[in-house]
Amino acid sequence: METFEAIKGRRSIRKYKKEKLPRQDLEKILEAGIWAPSGSNAQPWQFFVIDNNELIKKIMVIAPGIFNLPAAMIIVCRDMERAFSLVGELGRDVISLMDISMASQNMMIEAYDLGIGSCPVRSFGISALKILLNFPEHISPELIIALGYPEEFLPAPERRKLDEVVFWYGN
Amino acid sequence: METFEAIKGRRSIRKYKKEKLPRQDLEKILEAGIWAPSGSNAQPWQFFVIDNNELIKKIMVIAPGIFNLPAAMIIVCRDMERAFSLVGELGRDVISLMDISMASQNMMIEAYDLGIGSCPVRSFGISALKILLNFPEHISPELIIALGYPEEFLPAPERRKLDEVVFWYGN
Repeated sequence: METFEAIKGRRSIRKYKKEKLPRQDLEKILEAGIWAPSGSNAQPWQFFVIDNNELIKKIMVIAPGIFNLPAAMIIVCRDMERAFSLVGELGRDVISLMDISMASQNMMIEAYDLGIGSCPVRSFGISALKILLNFPEHISPELIIALGYPEEFLPAPERRKLDEVVFWYGN
Repeated sequence: METFEAIKGRRSIRKYKKEKLPRQDLEKILEAGIWAPSGSNAQPWQFFVIDNNELIKKIMVIAPGIFNLPAAMIIVCRDMERAFSLVGELGRDVISLMDISMASQNMMIEAYDLGIGSCPVRSFGISALKILLNFPEHISPELIIALGYPEEFLPAPERRKLDEVVFWYGN
């Protein structure tokens, strides 16, 4: 698919078919993630892939932003130790969050390109998720990307117009 | 260009040709930005496009992360008031930063697709930039995307391998 078509066509998909996702597609989505830029090339990310329905259901209990069972989830985490040791306080507190967000966007675009729906979800209990998945202290889950073949296609929510959000300081 | 090719081929480009960028290409890059997802669909972004060399040079004085004159810059900002009023404290403090980072990644991928090099820069004085550009208090510049036709192509910095950053909780 053409790049712009994928960027513009991607939607947040919230209802998924039961069908599981091929491992090779998940790997390609993850591969897209690691090609994001990162401050000082720290690559302060870790990705946890869940495609076990029982575990997905447990996570849904603490993630009220997910209403329907996805086929898989990628839990996008910051490695706070790595970010701090390579980029300092600003890296740990700010830049690493930007890095993993860019990686997430790569993954959602690539998923769409493969015919797979995605939805970024931030409304979950970070501490509860860390306990559930037994994450070490320095691994901070920041985003759940829910994934699955789309069960429904809704129209895109309206976008603010370019002339409302863009300001030109031209020649 | 194919989506995955654009995602994987994008590089941070730090040396630019003098040639200016066509307005229609800049508009397409910005259009890619506004198709990013955002928490609660708040779209808490504002984009300031600078392609006046004198102003670019003034910005470079307070942006030590930019060594060579870019043809243009997009200053990606958060609208803190909008984020807070639509998404609350978590929106203002965290989610809006993720939103504008995803929009930035869209723009950098689309720039690459158009043959335009980009580099995300976070090392600049936020307060100084706000004063220089006369931003209102609630508009917070978070990232400068430097843009220009590439003057040089360097090999990609090494990526951490998938099996170092990906963990599977499979069936």
